[in-house]
Amino acid sequence: MPNPTAAMIVIGDEILSGRTRDSNMHHLAGQLTSVGIDLKEVRVVGDEHGTIIAAVQQLAKVYDSVFTSGGIGPTHDDITADCIAAAFNKYIDVRDDARAILAEHYAKSGTELNEARLRMARIPDDATLIDNPVSAAPGFKLENVHVMAGVPAVFEAMVASVLPTLTGGAPLISRTLRIDRGEGDIAGPLGQVARDYPALSIGSYPFQKDGKYGAHIVIRGNDAAAIDAAIGALEKIFL
Amino acid sequence: MPNPTAAMIVIGDEILSGRTRDSNMHHLAGQLTSVGIDLKEVRVVGDEHGTIIAAVQQLAKVYDSVFTSGGIGPTHDDITADCIAAAFNKYIDVRDDARAILAEHYAKSGTELNEARLRMARIPDDATLIDNPVSAAPGFKLENVHVMAGVPAVFEAMVASVLPTLTGGAPLISRTLRIDRGEGDIAGPLGQVARDYPALSIGSYPFQKDGKYGAHIVIRGNDAAAIDAAIGALEKIFL
Repeated sequence: MPNPTAAMIVIGDEILSGRTRDSNMHHLAGQLTSVGIDLKEVRVVGDEHGTIIAAVQQLAKVYDSVFTSGGIGPTHDDITADCIAAAFNKYIDVRDDARAILAEHYAKSGTELNEARLRMARIPDDATLIDNPVSAAPGFKLENVHVMAGVPAVFEAMVASVLPTLTGGAPLISRTLRIDRGEGDIAGPLGQVARDYPALSIGSYPFQKDGKYGAHIVIRGNDAAAIDAAIGALEKIFL
Repeated sequence: MPNPTAAMIVIGDEILSGRTRDSNMHHLAGQLTSVGIDLKEVRVVGDEHGTIIAAVQQLAKVYDSVFTSGGIGPTHDDITADCIAAAFNKYIDVRDDARAILAEHYAKSGTELNEARLRMARIPDDATLIDNPVSAAPGFKLENVHVMAGVPAVFEAMVASVLPTLTGGAPLISRTLRIDRGEGDIAGPLGQVARDYPALSIGSYPFQKDGKYGAHIVIRGNDAAAIDAAIGALEKIFL
């Protein structure tokens, strides 16, 4: 059985302008791979209603699950929750369960739960809250879309909250072979090995170090014996 | 007149599996912003013909220019050039101008220009070559799509080759104001300033340092006087 599939939507003008370097994609990719879920596509979009809604609707239809990052804070440019509600035609307003979480959190520090902070309790009908152990304001899951914060520490904590709830597949097995020759010399025999093992994903990632060329050959799949055999075939040719 | 728009397609299973952390998106975003081109969307896709072709066709139609990264090396998993040709229904084979560049490059080091390396001279009909001062194998431009390497040093050199050929817009002016208060306290007045200056893009990027909350307010636009006025309005409220 093929692994479950996933897509991610990174939301934020600051990523597209080059102001901020996204790190959430790399984190989620590694986490999903570790539980046997194949991340198939990532889209980075700006803070625009139409673009976000279209991306959510398209990807939620194609992939088993979707993960979003960004746009759920208290300021005017935080529009993700409203876009998710619109994408699934759900009513959205401040919800009591989310408000209670915020009220308890801010009471501890004597911070006022003002109108802006209450925006973070806007949760669509039928959504399930996602725990935020860092700064309380919850994410949520609606249909197959998991809506999470953009701040990396919060995003990563939310991913940790969500991961045990996901149905993973067979965790991908991965082995890497380093070959200290130029990719142009590796490519011919490597292509033959790739054809011999069509069920494996074989990638070649070239590097240059101290003026010498080489490549890391990464072989991934679910069948450990086939991976070992393919690695053995390459070692016989190149080492 | 609005700025020209752009999209990027990052191609490679290694990004989606979490093996490799992409850095090309952040680099391109900053470079395009510096010449007044608005990067509006990025898609990260795997090494699959159908997915790559669909992304190229969709984005090339919507945005003024498209930039791709990855998949133009000599190995079997390098399929980008063929996908671009297919996306625009162009014939592709080893082209004499690209072969001459490779022949000259490999002659210098006494390296054989074998069949695998010749794959890097596969260029679609009607495409213009993009100079690669790092490792010779060229990128290319077909229609409004710029096809570049995934290795960051090569990608960045190709971006530098391409940038002077692009028609930029008014370079975006950006000013940042640091406010040492929680976003929840900033959000209300900030939203009012955002409504007062609808032509400006105003973003709030929270941080937490040494247990204290704050946010960087980034105001971007083409009108320096309006940006100064908005910054002044915020300073009056918060500083």
